[in-house]
Amino acid sequence: MRFSVGIDLGGTNIKAGLVSELGEIIQDIITPTNADSGEKAIASRISHTICQLINRGNSFGVGLQDIAGIGIGAAGLIEPVEGVVHFSPNFAGWHDIPLAGLVQEDLAQNSTNCKISALPIVLENDGNAMAFGELCHGAGVNVRNLVSLTLGTGVGGGIVIDGSIFHGSRNAGAELGHTIIQSNGRLCGCGNYGCLEAYVGRQYIIERTRRKIVAEGRYSSLEGNLNDLTPKMISDAAEKGDEVAVDIFVETGKCIGVALTSLAHILNPEMAIIGGGIADAGETLLFEPIRSELKKRAMDTNADSMRVVKAQLGNQAGLVGSAMLVFQN
Amino acid sequence: MRFSVGIDLGGTNIKAGLVSELGEIIQDIITPTNADSGEKAIASRISHTICQLINRGNSFGVGLQDIAGIGIGAAGLIEPVEGVVHFSPNFAGWHDIPLAGLVQEDLAQNSTNCKISALPIVLENDGNAMAFGELCHGAGVNVRNLVSLTLGTGVGGGIVIDGSIFHGSRNAGAELGHTIIQSNGRLCGCGNYGCLEAYVGRQYIIERTRRKIVAEGRYSSLEGNLNDLTPKMISDAAEKGDEVAVDIFVETGKCIGVALTSLAHILNPEMAIIGGGIADAGETLLFEPIRSELKKRAMDTNADSMRVVKAQLGNQAGLVGSAMLVFQN
Repeated sequence: MRFSVGIDLGGTNIKAGLVSELGEIIQDIITPTNADSGEKAIASRISHTICQLINRGNSFGVGLQDIAGIGIGAAGLIEPVEGVVHFSPNFAGWHDIPLAGLVQEDLAQNSTNCKISALPIVLENDGNAMAFGELCHGAGVNVRNLVSLTLGTGVGGGIVIDGSIFHGSRNAGAELGHTIIQSNGRLCGCGNYGCLEAYVGRQYIIERTRRKIVAEGRYSSLEGNLNDLTPKMISDAAEKGDEVAVDIFVETGKCIGVALTSLAHILNPEMAIIGGGIADAGETLLFEPIRSELKKRAMDTNADSMRVVKAQLGNQAGLVGSAMLVFQN
Repeated sequence: MRFSVGIDLGGTNIKAGLVSELGEIIQDIITPTNADSGEKAIASRISHTICQLINRGNSFGVGLQDIAGIGIGAAGLIEPVEGVVHFSPNFAGWHDIPLAGLVQEDLAQNSTNCKISALPIVLENDGNAMAFGELCHGAGVNVRNLVSLTLGTGVGGGIVIDGSIFHGSRNAGAELGHTIIQSNGRLCGCGNYGCLEAYVGRQYIIERTRRKIVAEGRYSSLEGNLNDLTPKMISDAAEKGDEVAVDIFVETGKCIGVALTSLAHILNPEMAIIGGGIADAGETLLFEPIRSELKKRAMDTNADSMRVVKAQLGNQAGLVGSAMLVFQN
């Protein structure tokens, strides 16, 4: 059995795991990113975490010779071959940071076992890493062509074509959260109007709920919680039949269904995988409205080709996917 | 030098050409399709045209041994490997018609030189064939990743990834005219609302022009021609400074720019090639509004990656592209 180290480098935490090629997480570590501490400090924290995991692996009978490499997933525009972060929404000052190289240097200087620094390091966009994780060990096993959306503060995207991550000509493809659904619509964080993300990002789901209750004056069990609303509270209320909350998820599902219609017409994938916290709202609240909108809008072959399913790896998709990148080549 | 036969099978005409691998059309023939005459009759007309071209080629010193095969482009859902038309907007009754096989059978029965029927026949969606023609010998030479839009009655689409035509999981991808730009927008011919095609298809360009003049009461040099308007008349008027006509093309360009923004975010191609009659409106009227909308909306890397250019092969892109399919494998 072979193993690899997967790193999900977020703005808040570094999640790291020692993962078998079957996708089992043998050991994992979560440590704060300290996003404003500079690239060298962050590379050093990653490197330290890698050494910890490899040392722990030893006590589980996983030797260094069993470890094929290290995969790192990070948000932003990533150059996978060179291991460079061109820019990242999580690290304000970063431009063209050779992250893979920095981690490797730190490993060479500080790891007690210098062979750790000889392990190959693969860097990837986190949306792509998640899609790849689901492909290898989640909802997309046995699928060759898929798109994935990860719903959170923003909307991450990934595309797999013929079993491989699709990058686009300058590694800037698969920004599926910025598929336009309404050209004269809401301002998105990216500066464009009407992107999917502007409609189904966490903040707007909360804002729409408040608006229905306050501005439209509708009754809702959530009206006592208007200042600390979360998508989880809204989906809990929806499950109990709160009509405002149900409407919020139906609307969210319709917006996702519109974006998936364009993706079905453009890419004709076999599967769309929806993950992230909001996907926990589940089949009736979220997935049925998505599928119904897709069925209504997309051409038959395109709609029929594409199963819409929930991500299976939860918030470990990034970690597992990053680890699996090592086995890709 | 090697040659192939390219066929652009339209609803009205069969355009066929004997084409060199450099993309030169040595001989061409246009003959009516007679779309309602049934698949066998149409296959027979195609087969007859192929024999005519090959015979004519002989008098130009192109022998049968110099011809690598036959490529056919047709609208609709095409299975390229099996050579089957699943359905086509141009041939109402067609379901799962093995067109390549029917042509080959007819060649075997009727060609004076039986070796013609041994030539391989490649079938492809016409939007894909056009994109491939532009890639091989048009605006996309030296480009590896591109999208193409052909503006006409409908909007055809093609995607090239890493030098190859992209088909999607069931050959239903690259339906770029059905990228949604406005989810609550106009009803499209496909049954969906807000597709690009619903905004920039020939009929709506004419309808919008009429509306500006009649319903909005704006002055236009076109007001004497309201019953027989064509996009060409509108672009001619725009070139002479007619404000209504200029507005029509600016609006058309903006709609295309919205769709290209989604395509830039999803596919991050190096180039978007715009062809078809309406593209003749040219740089100032059409391409500048497209580029300006893309620049305004798309993320910098995605916009900067993608050159927006006019198709170079005009209405021969389908014929040349179909011919080049033979050399693809």
